[in-house]
Amino acid sequence: MRIALSMLGFGLVMLSGTAYGAAEQAGHGTHWGYSGDVGPDRWAQMKPEFSACAGKNQSPINVSGLIEAQLPPVKFDYKQGGSEVVNNGHAIQVNYDAGSGIEVDGTRFDLKQFHFHSPSENQVNGKSFPLEAHLVHADKDGNLAVVSVMFDEGKDNPAVAAAWGQMPKSAGGKNALPGKVGANGLLPANRDYYRYNGSLTTPPCTEGVRWIVMKKPLTVSKQQIETFQKTLGFANNRPVQAVNARPILK
Amino acid sequence: MRIALSMLGFGLVMLSGTAYGAAEQAGHGTHWGYSGDVGPDRWAQMKPEFSACAGKNQSPINVSGLIEAQLPPVKFDYKQGGSEVVNNGHAIQVNYDAGSGIEVDGTRFDLKQFHFHSPSENQVNGKSFPLEAHLVHADKDGNLAVVSVMFDEGKDNPAVAAAWGQMPKSAGGKNALPGKVGANGLLPANRDYYRYNGSLTTPPCTEGVRWIVMKKPLTVSKQQIETFQKTLGFANNRPVQAVNARPILK
Repeated sequence: MRIALSMLGFGLVMLSGTAYGAAEQAGHGTHWGYSGDVGPDRWAQMKPEFSACAGKNQSPINVSGLIEAQLPPVKFDYKQGGSEVVNNGHAIQVNYDAGSGIEVDGTRFDLKQFHFHSPSENQVNGKSFPLEAHLVHADKDGNLAVVSVMFDEGKDNPAVAAAWGQMPKSAGGKNALPGKVGANGLLPANRDYYRYNGSLTTPPCTEGVRWIVMKKPLTVSKQQIETFQKTLGFANNRPVQAVNARPILK
Repeated sequence: MRIALSMLGFGLVMLSGTAYGAAEQAGHGTHWGYSGDVGPDRWAQMKPEFSACAGKNQSPINVSGLIEAQLPPVKFDYKQGGSEVVNNGHAIQVNYDAGSGIEVDGTRFDLKQFHFHSPSENQVNGKSFPLEAHLVHADKDGNLAVVSVMFDEGKDNPAVAAAWGQMPKSAGGKNALPGKVGANGLLPANRDYYRYNGSLTTPPCTEGVRWIVMKKPLTVSKQQIETFQKTLGFANNRPVQAVNARPILK
């Protein structure tokens, strides 16, 4: 029952392109944010549907203490499908057309959307990055798999530029992307990855999420990072969570 | 807060030698069992402290879909320390003296107790065993690590015989073991293991538990199995739970 509600919440917050209330504004139905009384250390207590935020298998984490493992390649099947860009008050998100996805553990996961966090949420051996992309996928049963890509400061990224060129300035805004941004532009050429078992990094913090963290970072320009941070107006990274009993694979 | 309560519950149920109420008797404080209205599919709804039983990272599981990994040896440091045997109404448990433990992930976990389930709770590639031992360890912060050993039917096991020779016939019973049973007698000579991230297999089903499942089974006699099952009076195995996003390592 609790799981079904959480998945529903996820659907509303993450998958739809409609405005769901700004994090930093009071009076909305689900008033959570990244600081103060509605910050990450309060999420679990805000409502019963957010109780998973206090779980033992939460994301993000510091990807470290790695165990060498024979991880099979993730099969990527990404078409040009980023069709609209949303400022949902928590992140800048690109909603994706049906028909793209990945295969992990022999299961197909469809790409639903990608969005960005600055600074990065996950860390790698204690290193924080100025930007992290989360490509969010769901299988036919609603199980989730997130591909994470880190960005260092450097040359600009054309896919990011294409998406953010239409970035809505205000929470709740949504703009079409007639050119259809391609998620392949967010993947490094080398597809080696770290893997761990985690959760959504935002309420309801649903667990049971497959995390695929690409080892090789890409770059975005200093200007791109500044544009993102200025538009959002706050750092949208949840602090790293305890690893607890989880093996993290490389 | 929830975690602290769960750990307290665990302390009462699993670590102490006192009677905590029989699973199959009504009217006790925590009335859970293995069938009917208080069976495993009801645990999560019985009280808020049991909500983790509906989590995404529960034990037991079918240990399968294995990923080859470089798992370092677990360092075992077991002395003769099984000092009393308890029939707690859910299992037959041997409480252990301080001073024995294991090292996993660079952390010391002290052996608190071992207990038995028949048939086995975890399965290996779909195979159920007639008996499974759980050696329960805790680090100084209360994090848990369980070593699981499977038993096939065959020759009798001297350590099991030593413990079960004093097995209380009734729930709530406790008998001293002056000879101090040694947990080394429950370990196979070959210490290769599977590893996964799971939970307690009984309410409150606390997650964040390191599971170390020994690859090589031991044996107990048909008579030993029958004695256990007859004394307990019911099968004390929780059904296998969904693996979800967890990698399982070999």
